[in-house]
Amino acid sequence: MHDQPPAPPFGKDPATIVRQADPFNAGPPLPILRADFVTPVERFFVRSHGDVPQVDPAAYRLRIGGLVERPLELSLDDLRAACPRYTVMATLQCAGNRRQDLIAVEPIPGELPWGAEAISNAAWGGYRLGDVLALAGVAPAAAHVCLSGLDETERHGERFTFGGSLPLAKALHPDTLLADEMNGQPLPPVHGAPLRVVAPGYIGARSVKWLASITLAEQPSDNYFQAVAYRLFPANTQRDSVDWDSGIMLGELSVNAVICTPGAGANVPAGPLEVAGYATAGGGRAVARVDVSADGGATWRAAQLEPDSAVWSWRFWSITLDLPDGQHELVVRMIDSAANTQPAEPSLVWNFKGYMSNAWHRIAITAGSGKGAATWDI
Amino acid sequence: MHDQPPAPPFGKDPATIVRQADPFNAGPPLPILRADFVTPVERFFVRSHGDVPQVDPAAYRLRIGGLVERPLELSLDDLRAACPRYTVMATLQCAGNRRQDLIAVEPIPGELPWGAEAISNAAWGGYRLGDVLALAGVAPAAAHVCLSGLDETERHGERFTFGGSLPLAKALHPDTLLADEMNGQPLPPVHGAPLRVVAPGYIGARSVKWLASITLAEQPSDNYFQAVAYRLFPANTQRDSVDWDSGIMLGELSVNAVICTPGAGANVPAGPLEVAGYATAGGGRAVARVDVSADGGATWRAAQLEPDSAVWSWRFWSITLDLPDGQHELVVRMIDSAANTQPAEPSLVWNFKGYMSNAWHRIAITAGSGKGAATWDI
Repeated sequence: MHDQPPAPPFGKDPATIVRQADPFNAGPPLPILRADFVTPVERFFVRSHGDVPQVDPAAYRLRIGGLVERPLELSLDDLRAACPRYTVMATLQCAGNRRQDLIAVEPIPGELPWGAEAISNAAWGGYRLGDVLALAGVAPAAAHVCLSGLDETERHGERFTFGGSLPLAKALHPDTLLADEMNGQPLPPVHGAPLRVVAPGYIGARSVKWLASITLAEQPSDNYFQAVAYRLFPANTQRDSVDWDSGIMLGELSVNAVICTPGAGANVPAGPLEVAGYATAGGGRAVARVDVSADGGATWRAAQLEPDSAVWSWRFWSITLDLPDGQHELVVRMIDSAANTQPAEPSLVWNFKGYMSNAWHRIAITAGSGKGAATWDI
Repeated sequence: MHDQPPAPPFGKDPATIVRQADPFNAGPPLPILRADFVTPVERFFVRSHGDVPQVDPAAYRLRIGGLVERPLELSLDDLRAACPRYTVMATLQCAGNRRQDLIAVEPIPGELPWGAEAISNAAWGGYRLGDVLALAGVAPAAAHVCLSGLDETERHGERFTFGGSLPLAKALHPDTLLADEMNGQPLPPVHGAPLRVVAPGYIGARSVKWLASITLAEQPSDNYFQAVAYRLFPANTQRDSVDWDSGIMLGELSVNAVICTPGAGANVPAGPLEVAGYATAGGGRAVARVDVSADGGATWRAAQLEPDSAVWSWRFWSITLDLPDGQHELVVRMIDSAANTQPAEPSLVWNFKGYMSNAWHRIAITAGSGKGAATWDI
């Protein structure tokens, strides 16, 4: 393992929005993201906490230990021989997606300024994590499955590898995978080759890439990225007055919805305009309805949900609005199958780490000359 | 079956809040509701759509039909002989709980003006619905389990029995029961004797009482209470302009939290004050954090979650506030394990049927003489 730029094919698209060069963090512009229900591999957003490990597949071993009956070291051939293959369509979303909307309320230093592009959808191929755990035998006391990657990062002067954990029930869910394929292609290095976790419906950080070891334990992982980072602190609590144990260890994702096209600030012809975007409901819940407003939230119309869908995937939506000359504030909000809704304003969920930013998404656009009756004031 | 008042023991408590005498709909005052994690049977809220059927247990038969391999008629003895018993602790909550907060925004004619008392928690004993369905054999095409009660109701000039349905996967969940016991006592008539459904984490209406028949089908039940009522329409859509198919068929419950004590309008001594209430997360999710504000939402403190808990139950919480002389607006908000939050204002989720009212709960109280610095203006 040594420093090097992210491997192709990611980043070929010159439109890629690079939020950080080293470690590499990037995603596609929203109109490009919205073009395909299944995100092409070369456009899938990348979240890295360190350099991309370069792994020799022949030498690779997955270690399984802790509260198991038989500690194991498995080669890729061992896995292939022992476990049936499965494919699961799943959207991964970073817990920091849409952090920019929180930063606009109050700065969040030291965290990536993601727009709404830290999300993508793919068909993941590989093995069920539960099948792999069964090879080692889960001891009765085990309650959490700790996952450790090969990627090294540095925080507060210490170097360590990325890690996190899943509750045992989530790890044993038949749709939780160790993936080595993405959309039918071999998993690229930047996405975790040779083997990564895919924990559908959970924040992306739990889908540990470049998986090195699995340790079954009574408690969640004590890795920095489980025990300290990726905790959701009370809204509007300040960093300098926080009780660090008060943060919720993030797991399942909340409701969210985003307008992908037109882009913010667009100037469009007056008349019919197609507005399109994505919506997500965490934990396998369904997107039940998406509403769109063309007047800043005063009135709403239900958008059409696109037919493409899968249990663990985002839902695309679209609506045609008829916009007169003038400035308009477009807003989207969604409701999931459990009747959960989004907060109306980012200030209501602002938190100093900038996670789970899911307020109604608003963009300002101008139709025609912009000289008509304004419904939105700049 | 004939008209008669609800059977004892419910309603003995003179403090019971009766929202409707016929059919009988009532619940306990909030401080009494909050007194016990497991609600005593005689205090458990009652939601009726018709008269309470009086059923002869010896003559009772449960019919199972539709998309099954073997249509069956089962007596209570048949069930006892064929199915093992289970107990599940579960909170039931009416979809109309807290409708009063929506009515305060805009009237909702023709629906019960529930406060926050249409919720209670009990230990339900009986049989797994999945075990009962297995006796009949579920046909491959079955996707919904339609449930029909013995209670008759009238809507729009037609008389019919109450009904609803569960998605097959929910019906087969090991914690979905046909219950004949409540807190170790025989199920009282007013709560559905001899046999009722208990679908934990779902709106109460799906836990059909006085269960008469189960019909497996490809589609949800066409009973009025599944197909028309208990749908969630877009916020702020008006009844006269609604597309009736646009409503979401309610299933899982959303996040909610309520202050039970002190009561709204209370006059309390200045100084330390214990504030206590309940919080719920639907679908088996956990209550991750409860925040309380003593200044109308400007600043917040995390409440203590009480140790009593169960997967499908509400979570009790409490916090001691130190209140100076004056008027105060207390507010509670919660967040669940999927990072879903409540809307800040009832106006954001107002809907013309008045379901899923789950905005931050606010009460005004006065401490001491009430002459101190007011933080809340009447």
